Amino acid sequence: MDYFFNPRGVAVVGATANPKKGGNIIVGNLLKGYEGKIYPVNPRYNTIDGLTCYPSLRAVPDPVDLAVVFVGAEMVPQVIQDCAVRGIPGAMIESAGFAEIGAEGLARQHVTARIAEEGGVRLWGPNCMGLVDVKNRRVFSTVTPSIWDQGMIPGKVSLIVQSGLLAGAFLIDVMSHGVMGIGKACSIGNKMDVMECDLLEYLLADPDTGVVGLYLESIVDGPRFISLCRGAKKPIVVLKGGKSVAGAAAAMSHTASMAGDGAVVSGAFHQTGVVEADDFHQMMDYCRVLGEFDGLPSGLGNRVAVMTYSGGAGIVSADFLGDAQLALATLSQESLTRLKGVFPSWMAPGNPVDLWPGILLNGAHKAYNETLAVLMNDPGVDAVFAHCFVGGFDLEPQLDTLARLAHSSRKPLFCWISGERKAVDRFQRQALDCRIPTFREIKRAVDCLGTLLAYHRRKYQHAGGPIKDVHVPTMLEDLLEGGSRVLNERASKSILKRVGIPVVEEIQVMTLTAADRAADRFGWPVVLKGVMPGAVHKTEAGLVALNIDGPEMLHREFEEMASRVGKAGEVLLQPQLPAGLELIVGLIRDPQFGPCVMCGLGGILAEVLNDRAFAVAPLDRADALALIGRLKAQQLLDGFRGAAALDRNALAEVLLRLGALGVACPVVREVDINPLIVVEGRPIAVDASVML
Amino acid sequence: MDYFFNPRGVAVVGATANPKKGGNIIVGNLLKGYEGKIYPVNPRYNTIDGLTCYPSLRAVPDPVDLAVVFVGAEMVPQVIQDCAVRGIPGAMIESAGFAEIGAEGLARQHVTARIAEEGGVRLWGPNCMGLVDVKNRRVFSTVTPSIWDQGMIPGKVSLIVQSGLLAGAFLIDVMSHGVMGIGKACSIGNKMDVMECDLLEYLLADPDTGVVGLYLESIVDGPRFISLCRGAKKPIVVLKGGKSVAGAAAAMSHTASMAGDGAVVSGAFHQTGVVEADDFHQMMDYCRVLGEFDGLPSGLGNRVAVMTYSGGAGIVSADFLGDAQLALATLSQESLTRLKGVFPSWMAPGNPVDLWPGILLNGAHKAYNETLAVLMNDPGVDAVFAHCFVGGFDLEPQLDTLARLAHSSRKPLFCWISGERKAVDRFQRQALDCRIPTFREIKRAVDCLGTLLAYHRRKYQHAGGPIKDVHVPTMLEDLLEGGSRVLNERASKSILKRVGIPVVEEIQVMTLTAADRAADRFGWPVVLKGVMPGAVHKTEAGLVALNIDGPEMLHREFEEMASRVGKAGEVLLQPQLPAGLELIVGLIRDPQFGPCVMCGLGGILAEVLNDRAFAVAPLDRADALALIGRLKAQQLLDGFRGAAALDRNALAEVLLRLGALGVACPVVREVDINPLIVVEGRPIAVDASVML
Repeated sequence: MDYFFNPRGVAVVGATANPKKGGNIIVGNLLKGYEGKIYPVNPRYNTIDGLTCYPSLRAVPDPVDLAVVFVGAEMVPQVIQDCAVRGIPGAMIESAGFAEIGAEGLARQHVTARIAEEGGVRLWGPNCMGLVDVKNRRVFSTVTPSIWDQGMIPGKVSLIVQSGLLAGAFLIDVMSHGVMGIGKACSIGNKMDVMECDLLEYLLADPDTGVVGLYLESIVDGPRFISLCRGAKKPIVVLKGGKSVAGAAAAMSHTASMAGDGAVVSGAFHQTGVVEADDFHQMMDYCRVLGEFDGLPSGLGNRVAVMTYSGGAGIVSADFLGDAQLALATLSQESLTRLKGVFPSWMAPGNPVDLWPGILLNGAHKAYNETLAVLMNDPGVDAVFAHCFVGGFDLEPQLDTLARLAHSSRKPLFCWISGERKAVDRFQRQALDCRIPTFREIKRAVDCLGTLLAYHRRKYQHAGGPIKDVHVPTMLEDLLEGGSRVLNERASKSILKRVGIPVVEEIQVMTLTAADRAADRFGWPVVLKGVMPGAVHKTEAGLVALNIDGPEMLHREFEEMASRVGKAGEVLLQPQLPAGLELIVGLIRDPQFGPCVMCGLGGILAEVLNDRAFAVAPLDRADALALIGRLKAQQLLDGFRGAAALDRNALAEVLLRLGALGVACPVVREVDINPLIVVEGRPIAVDASVML
Repeated sequence: MDYFFNPRGVAVVGATANPKKGGNIIVGNLLKGYEGKIYPVNPRYNTIDGLTCYPSLRAVPDPVDLAVVFVGAEMVPQVIQDCAVRGIPGAMIESAGFAEIGAEGLARQHVTARIAEEGGVRLWGPNCMGLVDVKNRRVFSTVTPSIWDQGMIPGKVSLIVQSGLLAGAFLIDVMSHGVMGIGKACSIGNKMDVMECDLLEYLLADPDTGVVGLYLESIVDGPRFISLCRGAKKPIVVLKGGKSVAGAAAAMSHTASMAGDGAVVSGAFHQTGVVEADDFHQMMDYCRVLGEFDGLPSGLGNRVAVMTYSGGAGIVSADFLGDAQLALATLSQESLTRLKGVFPSWMAPGNPVDLWPGILLNGAHKAYNETLAVLMNDPGVDAVFAHCFVGGFDLEPQLDTLARLAHSSRKPLFCWISGERKAVDRFQRQALDCRIPTFREIKRAVDCLGTLLAYHRRKYQHAGGPIKDVHVPTMLEDLLEGGSRVLNERASKSILKRVGIPVVEEIQVMTLTAADRAADRFGWPVVLKGVMPGAVHKTEAGLVALNIDGPEMLHREFEEMASRVGKAGEVLLQPQLPAGLELIVGLIRDPQFGPCVMCGLGGILAEVLNDRAFAVAPLDRADALALIGRLKAQQLLDGFRGAAALDRNALAEVLLRLGALGVACPVVREVDINPLIVVEGRPIAVDASVML
């Protein structure tokens, strides 16, 4: 991939002398920063912008590693053919007119891809804005040259952006507003060959990149994406577009119906430590913050001290902390005593620290500096959130001193900045130089601080042990009664039992006598279930009789059930489990990530809370425990109102085994265990469907 | 109050010639815009800034309606005394050093208040930034004079801000960033006399004000606040600080323990149509949007069309709509046909409308104009969200044409603007002139659009009928067995029954024979409950025996219960209700709002979902129904898994009667009905505690 980022020589196919056209802008952008040879290609010119222009790629001299292509879509296949002949390893196709315009363009895209593959040419694009490498001043893009005049601030944040125009538009916006530095920005367009994973892999190894932000509408190779994220030593932030797109309308299983709204993608992100953003600005905020604090020490918690010039702003900040999984720090007695030196005698300092009386007494510099020193030294404080006002009122702190204090403490200092427009702009740029993140809004600052601290807690937590080896009988074919798509309860549970998942006992009863005998064996009360081909929703079909408390009721229910299922069905007798927490667990095959395990609340809570989480198989034990930990209703799991607490390891084992089944047996399309009931803390599958 | 806003003559007590001091800044601000007479007061000067300076207030000639006071706190009582002697009706105390500095300042505040009251002087402040009236260019404030050079954009948004410094800081920030117009900004400080309600009342009647935004840390007079908001013809937006402050640690009732986190305040806001914001920027965004669209027609729904230059941004926008209670509009066949004229033949337009191919074909102006015309004409579209990019790429639309189209359609048009910094600034200012709200972030734009449309739906929905007359027996004294703070179940339920709330039947049973007779009367199964002085949590104390299904079990349980409660207690027998949805309803007395009614989910769901809502008593039927409608678990109410749907009118009746009880009987401190079980759709109180 290095020929895309660090080419020895770049040809611009479709270069023109018209400064309004993209073909000229590409040449101009190259001239401004690229240090290698530039070869415009266009049969209609001899020179462009003082450079020799060549009639075709074949005429371009060595060295040339990259062709930036900006010609009509219909000419692109020929250009790629020329790259192959000429031995140019990389082509960045910035032209539009491919898959995004429908069938005709899609056909063209296929043709182009085949030529490239046969000729050994890697393709970036098409329908993209190429590359802006701010650090190395390499702009292989039609992006407006005005970016050179403003905002080319080098930084550690590299970006991968699907959606061609958005990438450029977004970049211009971010760069011209000048509040963060950028490393490499990659616009990947239609992803016909080079895709997010190729670039992610490159950027994770790139010494100039400290954090990678991605805007993606699809993830082409889910397993590779997961593997890259799992191994990443740098933070990865993703904004995934298209989450609200309705899932398959007629999902067969509960599990599949709970997989909408991006739950699977979010699960994969959680599992691999990817930070998920939900807006472009949030993505950029997370990137700049995570990029700034790559060296935070382990052991930082979530306790925040707030220092403010306004009691009101302190109150509003404190109100937000809980939402961001942060807590207001309790200051040590020593800190409180030391703070008294900054404030008038009538004031009893607390957290939030209202600086105003101290500013009146000692001026803003002393009040901010001494307070920050105390807070940063307090072992009960993990981070400080400072409110600053500039332009009027003489409230402006000495930013460089604050930054020095913060950096030497190795705890994050975040600033909320407001004030007169020009002064705010100046302060933000100064803060960028001092590496202090500033925010125009309290809520956003708190959100970012919470995300930063949570990321680092997780980073040090995640031991990343090997995937536990779960034995799955690979020869399940004898149980998979050929042909049927949905296995019945008995067949489904016997598969689960073979995989090692605890299932409720059951006996198939053909006669009343057999039913009596089975009930005697299990003890009262018992349950009768009717199993019929094609009947998936048993309760609704009247095929479940619960709480059968004696022989009389059993006889009545057996006769009824037997007549209901008829000759083609069968009747199962099971012990009635005591009431307990109902869960749903399941397995689906996601088009992007393959087999995924779900864990969710069942019963009435399933539909009200919609409380479920996904993880991509195979899971290790930490994944499985984290998956359980992502459910909202943790209180219920921990033993609600006298019930025994869930044995999380036992449930994790079920999830691990389900995942292993999914990986080992591609023939198993979906599994639904509903309900999985927690009895004295241990999960037992009471009903299940396996779909092939 | 008009002497504060429109005074004939203003005295500045504490005026100085030193341009760095607040006392000079006030005079300077007056000179720049105030059209009446200005009288500096300071014995140390003869003139200040060319104005005659007076040695004391008593020496100031007529007319003078307002004294702006900026002297040391210790001198303020004397100044107010002078106001009284001189007959000046209003004093705006901008000095600090009062309640905010502790006991000494609080004493000074009390003294000052007494002098003012006796002398007939209204006090604004202290510890505040006074008034900035942008429309009339009256600045009675120490706010930095730089506001005159930038951002004095008159508008309809008036503000009331508690927290002295914040008001000024915030105003400078908002004004200097110049993206919205301001009417009157009032900084109210310690609110020793003039409080939020006085100013709210004034601003609601002020012809220059279209919307009022408030930042409040406390609401001094809850009932008046509610009455003002109920009657308001203008939108009111409130940011309430201090919501996360932990409630009383040892709340007696469930209802009280569920009242934390600002639930009561939020309930009061909901009930009276106040829009609640959770950050300063959100408050200002809501204000500018609600102020802009005061003339929206009735009947607008929540269906949004998105027009974008980037498919990716369209996808992200669509993802956000659901969170903001908005839906993606389905375009009519006619619209789709008309849109084809703007786009290349290969493109099948949909919503979001991806303009890019149309821009390539026809240019940005035509693409935007014609598309917007089609969308605004579509009866299935209630609002349009347009994405705009400026500075590069030739994507900029004709804002004035778009605005004309939008205004003539009387549907909101919102813009997301990004691009090169200077171009964005220019676009935002132009949009302000054209009255098109612009946002730098998609999420925020969608949130504001959702808030706007919801506000208008509610405005036209809320008939605001009179409060239903619920008869509450005022002579409850006979039931209120003197002395005890918490009435037992039997006494509590008999009060509720008298109020007209359905309660489960019960018979006090002293003997086994009586128990048998009672059970025969109700039919099996039955419930036994033990009532003992001081035992509030009956289930935990073993004082509830459920599901007694026959005489044998009844005898056993009766003996046990009778021995458990002893001579001081009593045993109640009740019919066992069938399983049903469990609710908790209750009454508390809130220090700000007085009696408030709660409705929440009960049982296991209460603690997991924390699903509850409050409304201030007395309620009208619409309030009660809206209160029920604010619960999250609406699915459960509507008859879940075959259960009958809740009779909402019957539940509303319970809530109305509880509220009426709270209003009529101040002696009733709290009521907890837990559970209130829904049987065949009708709510019945199964257990209750009344606290006096």
